[in-house]
Amino acid sequence: MVPNLHRVGIMHIEDHEGWHEECGIVGIYGDERASEKVYLGLYALQHRGQESAGIASADGTCIACHKGQGLVWSVFSDPRTMPGLKGHAAIGHNRYSTRGVSTIVNAQPIVVECRQGTMALAHNGTITNASSLRRLLHDTGSIFQTTSDSEIVLHLVARSREDGVIEAAMKAMEKLVGAYCFVLLAPDMLLAARDPYGFRPLSLGRLGDAYVVASETCAFDIMAAEYVRSLEPGEVLVIDRDGPRSLFLPAAPRRAFCIFEFIYFSRPDSLVFGERVDKIRRRLGKRLAEDAPAQAHIVISVPDSGNTAALGYARASETRYEIGLIRNHYVGRTFIAPHQDKRKLDVRVKLNAVEGVVEGRSIVLVDDSIVRGTTMRQIVRLLRDKGASEVHVRISSPPIRHPCFYGIDISRHSELIASEKTVNEVCSFIGADSLGYLSLEGMLSCVEHPEDYCTACFDGTYPTEVPAGFDKFCL
Amino acid sequence: MVPNLHRVGIMHIEDHEGWHEECGIVGIYGDERASEKVYLGLYALQHRGQESAGIASADGTCIACHKGQGLVWSVFSDPRTMPGLKGHAAIGHNRYSTRGVSTIVNAQPIVVECRQGTMALAHNGTITNASSLRRLLHDTGSIFQTTSDSEIVLHLVARSREDGVIEAAMKAMEKLVGAYCFVLLAPDMLLAARDPYGFRPLSLGRLGDAYVVASETCAFDIMAAEYVRSLEPGEVLVIDRDGPRSLFLPAAPRRAFCIFEFIYFSRPDSLVFGERVDKIRRRLGKRLAEDAPAQAHIVISVPDSGNTAALGYARASETRYEIGLIRNHYVGRTFIAPHQDKRKLDVRVKLNAVEGVVEGRSIVLVDDSIVRGTTMRQIVRLLRDKGASEVHVRISSPPIRHPCFYGIDISRHSELIASEKTVNEVCSFIGADSLGYLSLEGMLSCVEHPEDYCTACFDGTYPTEVPAGFDKFCL
Amino acid sequence: MVPNLHRVGIMHIEDHEGWHEECGIVGIYGDERASEKVYLGLYALQHRGQESAGIASADGTCIACHKGQGLVWSVFSDPRTMPGLKGHAAIGHNRYSTRGVSTIVNAQPIVVECRQGTMALAHNGTITNASSLRRLLHDTGSIFQTTSDSEIVLHLVARSREDGVIEAAMKAMEKLVGAYCFVLLAPDMLLAARDPYGFRPLSLGRLGDAYVVASETCAFDIMAAEYVRSLEPGEVLVIDRDGPRSLFLPAAPRRAFCIFEFIYFSRPDSLVFGERVDKIRRRLGKRLAEDAPAQAHIVISVPDSGNTAALGYARASETRYEIGLIRNHYVGRTFIAPHQDKRKLDVRVKLNAVEGVVEGRSIVLVDDSIVRGTTMRQIVRLLRDKGASEVHVRISSPPIRHPCFYGIDISRHSELIASEKTVNEVCSFIGADSLGYLSLEGMLSCVEHPEDYCTACFDGTYPTEVPAGFDKFCL
Amino acid sequence: MVPNLHRVGIMHIEDHEGWHEECGIVGIYGDERASEKVYLGLYALQHRGQESAGIASADGTCIACHKGQGLVWSVFSDPRTMPGLKGHAAIGHNRYSTRGVSTIVNAQPIVVECRQGTMALAHNGTITNASSLRRLLHDTGSIFQTTSDSEIVLHLVARSREDGVIEAAMKAMEKLVGAYCFVLLAPDMLLAARDPYGFRPLSLGRLGDAYVVASETCAFDIMAAEYVRSLEPGEVLVIDRDGPRSLFLPAAPRRAFCIFEFIYFSRPDSLVFGERVDKIRRRLGKRLAEDAPAQAHIVISVPDSGNTAALGYARASETRYEIGLIRNHYVGRTFIAPHQDKRKLDVRVKLNAVEGVVEGRSIVLVDDSIVRGTTMRQIVRLLRDKGASEVHVRISSPPIRHPCFYGIDISRHSELIASEKTVNEVCSFIGADSLGYLSLEGMLSCVEHPEDYCTACFDGTYPTEVPAGFDKFCL
Repeated sequence: MVPNLHRVGIMHIEDHEGWHEECGIVGIYGDERASEKVYLGLYALQHRGQESAGIASADGTCIACHKGQGLVWSVFSDPRTMPGLKGHAAIGHNRYSTRGVSTIVNAQPIVVECRQGTMALAHNGTITNASSLRRLLHDTGSIFQTTSDSEIVLHLVARSREDGVIEAAMKAMEKLVGAYCFVLLAPDMLLAARDPYGFRPLSLGRLGDAYVVASETCAFDIMAAEYVRSLEPGEVLVIDRDGPRSLFLPAAPRRAFCIFEFIYFSRPDSLVFGERVDKIRRRLGKRLAEDAPAQAHIVISVPDSGNTAALGYARASETRYEIGLIRNHYVGRTFIAPHQDKRKLDVRVKLNAVEGVVEGRSIVLVDDSIVRGTTMRQIVRLLRDKGASEVHVRISSPPIRHPCFYGIDISRHSELIASEKTVNEVCSFIGADSLGYLSLEGMLSCVEHPEDYCTACFDGTYPTEVPAGFDKFCL
Repeated sequence: MVPNLHRVGIMHIEDHEGWHEECGIVGIYGDERASEKVYLGLYALQHRGQESAGIASADGTCIACHKGQGLVWSVFSDPRTMPGLKGHAAIGHNRYSTRGVSTIVNAQPIVVECRQGTMALAHNGTITNASSLRRLLHDTGSIFQTTSDSEIVLHLVARSREDGVIEAAMKAMEKLVGAYCFVLLAPDMLLAARDPYGFRPLSLGRLGDAYVVASETCAFDIMAAEYVRSLEPGEVLVIDRDGPRSLFLPAAPRRAFCIFEFIYFSRPDSLVFGERVDKIRRRLGKRLAEDAPAQAHIVISVPDSGNTAALGYARASETRYEIGLIRNHYVGRTFIAPHQDKRKLDVRVKLNAVEGVVEGRSIVLVDDSIVRGTTMRQIVRLLRDKGASEVHVRISSPPIRHPCFYGIDISRHSELIASEKTVNEVCSFIGADSLGYLSLEGMLSCVEHPEDYCTACFDGTYPTEVPAGFDKFCL
Repeated sequence: MVPNLHRVGIMHIEDHEGWHEECGIVGIYGDERASEKVYLGLYALQHRGQESAGIASADGTCIACHKGQGLVWSVFSDPRTMPGLKGHAAIGHNRYSTRGVSTIVNAQPIVVECRQGTMALAHNGTITNASSLRRLLHDTGSIFQTTSDSEIVLHLVARSREDGVIEAAMKAMEKLVGAYCFVLLAPDMLLAARDPYGFRPLSLGRLGDAYVVASETCAFDIMAAEYVRSLEPGEVLVIDRDGPRSLFLPAAPRRAFCIFEFIYFSRPDSLVFGERVDKIRRRLGKRLAEDAPAQAHIVISVPDSGNTAALGYARASETRYEIGLIRNHYVGRTFIAPHQDKRKLDVRVKLNAVEGVVEGRSIVLVDDSIVRGTTMRQIVRLLRDKGASEVHVRISSPPIRHPCFYGIDISRHSELIASEKTVNEVCSFIGADSLGYLSLEGMLSCVEHPEDYCTACFDGTYPTEVPAGFDKFCL
Repeated sequence: MVPNLHRVGIMHIEDHEGWHEECGIVGIYGDERASEKVYLGLYALQHRGQESAGIASADGTCIACHKGQGLVWSVFSDPRTMPGLKGHAAIGHNRYSTRGVSTIVNAQPIVVECRQGTMALAHNGTITNASSLRRLLHDTGSIFQTTSDSEIVLHLVARSREDGVIEAAMKAMEKLVGAYCFVLLAPDMLLAARDPYGFRPLSLGRLGDAYVVASETCAFDIMAAEYVRSLEPGEVLVIDRDGPRSLFLPAAPRRAFCIFEFIYFSRPDSLVFGERVDKIRRRLGKRLAEDAPAQAHIVISVPDSGNTAALGYARASETRYEIGLIRNHYVGRTFIAPHQDKRKLDVRVKLNAVEGVVEGRSIVLVDDSIVRGTTMRQIVRLLRDKGASEVHVRISSPPIRHPCFYGIDISRHSELIASEKTVNEVCSFIGADSLGYLSLEGMLSCVEHPEDYCTACFDGTYPTEVPAGFDKFCL
């Protein structure tokens, strides 16, 4: 859609190299200002998706919806918008950009009208049998207006022979394989579901008489709601005038919580899967110091995602923690890229090194992960340009060697530098003096129930059948 | 920062009291700059719908689409938009506002992906069995994301057991009853269809090697295309690399061209149904002078829709034609309405009387139709305020006494003043000295084949079965 | 500012070839909703300027202002804007585009703070000694942030040794030569001035206890105000709590009303200079029929500016008046111009010929004026393309042979086709079968006091000294 | 369509309570893509002002300018804007919001035309004799279109009897008292000036053959320019085709660098006044630990401004540094504030406490300053809500007891909690267990030449005469 403007380029500033498709969801039932609460929740979950935002609200009979591209504050900045989202129940969604041009058609929630009535759906995650479900739905006459998995689920609900929305939704979800959390809004009911493997997090909170669900509990804090508990894998929570009640999907053979929620996705002030993110993230850093020790003057992090692990590393290694990189937070949706060496500029618009900290120092640089390695390479160069004598890169997760099919947009081995290169080769590519990763064992030792977590991107052990010829459907 | 908003109201300036839901469609196949041609065509058809506009283009493999709320120039004003609509085929749509809040979800074309592949559809008209088709589709599991009839058609195409898009579209259209013209775009094919009754107009034109279809031929003129012919009722024109070919839907029991295209909808410089609009409109005015003569100093029109008929009236009655009302054309989507008598303001923001013309004069005021009568009442008052001694209202169509189910948004008798009141009562309501309508016979005498036209809104003789409990589906 | 976008061009659709810099002004004192009345007035005066709009309001102590690029409805469409423009007095301005890129800096009113206090100024017209005043102001240390003459006036007011705003304004205006009408707003006073020659029109109206001034009386009609009278040349009307009172600038050697207000600028439903525009415009057409008769089947006009004169021509020549050209009124600020012959397109986006009217007919085509001739050339071609057998162009004003220094943006002879070519050559250039202009005598015979009018653009008799090396200052 | 607007409020999220009017400036001469470099520089200086941004560029003969409200990326996001800012020299400006409604009129650079030619000016700082200069300029006939000090300077330059821009600017600056850095752009010259007291920072850099100036050196890093040196107090650097040369304003009685640049304003990765911000900021934290020790489990900071001082405090006090507060960086210009306790919400939209860090812990909370105390009060409450057992607030600057007249928008004692209350009373107001400030001596011991710094806001020792009846001019 963007033309080939010949004098200037437009650069999309990605906040994190390579991780896409995480989303944030919120739902509330029982609050007279439901949509305002969801708005606050989405604002707190903005880090999970900055491409588009949307809210659907219900007042017992009707569903209203507003969605658009951009950050939450911007999508809802017209003062006429929020008052139109009336009712005591609401759901909301933040979406990360996908590859290629993203447009409003894929913004969520999706509102449909079908034999089950009117309903709105938003989800976080990826359904691994989406292709085959889609093909099946195609073959039997369904039309698709988006590329979103939510639309598949809505088709399944609509096609269900069951009479009520709840029953239809249960039947529909039984057909799904993969990683998902859903919030589904009917005119007088909120349904929140977590897949049987439990890939994605979803927590329940309480705000006065109202019940809230959200991907992370930082959404509860901003609206002053209390945390109640994490939803169980396979739990389907139905909230209506009679309060909340739980149904359960058929159990999965195992649990498969996404450990990257701790490593990178979630905010450190959140609980996910019932655990405090910052606690585990600090443990990852500490263990990293054991797994991959380094002699250096100081420990610095790639802000903000590496901060907590770096603190842990510094503590465990008894090395000084310093702030050696400054992040520019005034990011917008586009950046007019001047005509200088683009690779050099790329990281400079986001990060700058603090010369007084790094000059003449040997440095342990902690980050959460390396995907393609290009950003890390630029950061290492930035530090050397400012006089760092040594740069020892330490990663608070094991090498990512396998694509993720459960909601993270890395579907090809060739994009994963650790899949193609040895650790030494990666080290040489990024130009570091040394490179150390957290071991798989080390990582798992940081969580309570290591068997509950998916480690597929590290060891290729996929919890579900690997979808044949997995690739994204492109409209 | 938030103002005291109850101080101002927002007024939507309607261009014509009560007529809604007319739309304009364009399609082209075989031009390297297909979307630019469609853009021009939509600009020429802007009078048929000002609420939203959209273009979908195809380059043999992919379909791209852009649509939005507002006038054509505004929806496509970003210079990055048009270059993204590549390809040698394209369709476009202008949409009139519906009642209530209109949103982008109902903008057309609608692009879907289904077993027939990717396709885009735009339509003009109303399908009278939409409710029952929709119910049927509901019952068998379809979901609806819009309230547009186009979505119903797309469902039917997708559900068809036929193998090709063309066959599937034919089967789908066989199920439809009502008034419609469609343009359907596949990656390398354009299909244009007119319903078997022929309610809505659709013409074929030629531009070099390319073929164009449009609701009115003024769309051909702006792109310098030549008029070829009107599509036949029930004709389905398929245009692809092999050129155009015609298929036909099962014949309807009769023809039912919408005579209001001549009375009001179409531009006078267009051909519709193969006839020159301005010719017939002038004839309507002439015949009106016979059916409802009046003694007056001058004939004036309600601009611009009444202009041509007024000219005809003036000629036939040998009364002087004058420009007695000036229309403000700088209309936008919203108008901040000050706090004065709103009924008075209503018409003043659109029209002003020319005092020098009307003062001390007896006037024949020609307009195309009266729906609710409230606007005409204000116009009469405006003329009297400026000193008109007598105001004789003459309407270039018979009294509208029955709702239209074929694309005009008047579905209740109670909204039609002529359905509730006698001509004398209407005259008294609008405050005119006399009121005269064109007779039904008179009107029909102005067209070549009177039997080809629908007169349901005048005499209640509906060409199709009247849909039981006809009312619009509201999402 | 607009880059060289290589795939698409952006075309600015001019409403009338070559006439620029006319503006509309409104002022009101004594109405609790002063800014809303001004808003309505600007909306009615939109034809005088579509580039930018602005309103300043005063509540006795403060002045608030909002202005922006675009049509009135759009500049004030945010519902938060109008409530911020509080107070019982207000002025407003519509501005035509100048050559080159127009930007918000030149939008009016201009609000300044100086020793006379805070004041806002808007004007219509051009000060012919602007260059020398500007140079003088430069030389003595003034800075200019705009290229608007209003800023010069504000400098002069600020520099005046007089104590009150009124006295200072009077002294300032005594220094001005040229064509202007001003509205100046102080926190509790409105001052409206018309230059001693009376080039530009300004009328006084009354709305309840409030007084209104406006360039044309159509602004009074929309707000239901009553017309009182035209301001005298050199009259300075001061309106405050004590009601209105008149001061007078030193008399000019003569009067020099701009006759183009009747020919083209003003709306036919307005009074300007105390005369009804439509009456005089019709007379111009009648006299044109005498001065330049033509044998033809029909008379048509270039809508809308040629309509009234065409009616007069038709009457006087006893030839049928027809509507042969249709104007597209859905113009916006930009138009993405497709890659077809641009000269051909230019007029097609604005006008289309009605084939049924023009085909096979000899036509008298009436327009108000010819500037460069390029648009008329296209219109003639359009008519011929649609089958006109003969096209006789008739212009309801004499040939424009000299630049105007009084507010119309034609400052070089080379832009005026009639200045470079004979009537026969112009006829040949535009491709007409014949071309006839209204004679100077004929034109003057249509107004009450011909000696009161400026005819400089026709005969080169400038009412004021011709500014040496007249050319626009460009920032 | 118009909502019930009294239902929602709009909240402006301030990034830092009470500190306003800092700005960032950049200038470059000698780079073919001058405006692009300035754009990058402004992006890096975004923390100094988020209200509006502007760039003016010069190509030897003309000056072009674009400015608007919003963040840099947004003001320049239209791809047509940057290519219009041609030339080898450019200046840019970021502006902080002032009180009340800020509008585009105050955006900088201001471009004027005067006897010295065309020039553009942008500044950072406040001129303390602005009122008297303004009055003087008023009295002698100047008009003001903005409330910006830049306009005063431009008036003085324009009024100078000197012949060249440089000489005129020197004369003008001699009349100024107060804190300022300027960048002035002429068609082929860049002038950068720092006031004789040196209140505000300005550094010189080099990028190939081009010279750059900027408020902070982080602007050099992003464009890969090299730092050369800080401008001297009173230095006026002129850069043109002959390279840079330095002139000097008459010396001030003393130096008065704003020490708050180290405490809060500047980015830690910048050099200002020739010193590394992060070094001094860390020293402030260390010395704070001496001046105001506290027994606690952990040290946390109010991110991001307190981070570096907190690290210093933690080091010196041998207490663990933790990340206990998370800042939401996805701020926009407006935030629709729901109807909950607004005081509670206020801080929650920006900050959240990390429960796992603070629960059950005694905490040292380090921030850079306390102005009104209301935000700190909310933060303390937030920490207690999450279970902090003790909260010891430590401020890395002395109590602010006096208004600043040099560019920080605190002009009344009554707004300064430390001016009205004792430290104990402030402690009680904010609800902390203890409150400790850095001592004045302690603060000064952290910089090389303490005598060079202004400490007026701490001790009331103003380097210049205190302007009588100092208050901001309000248009």
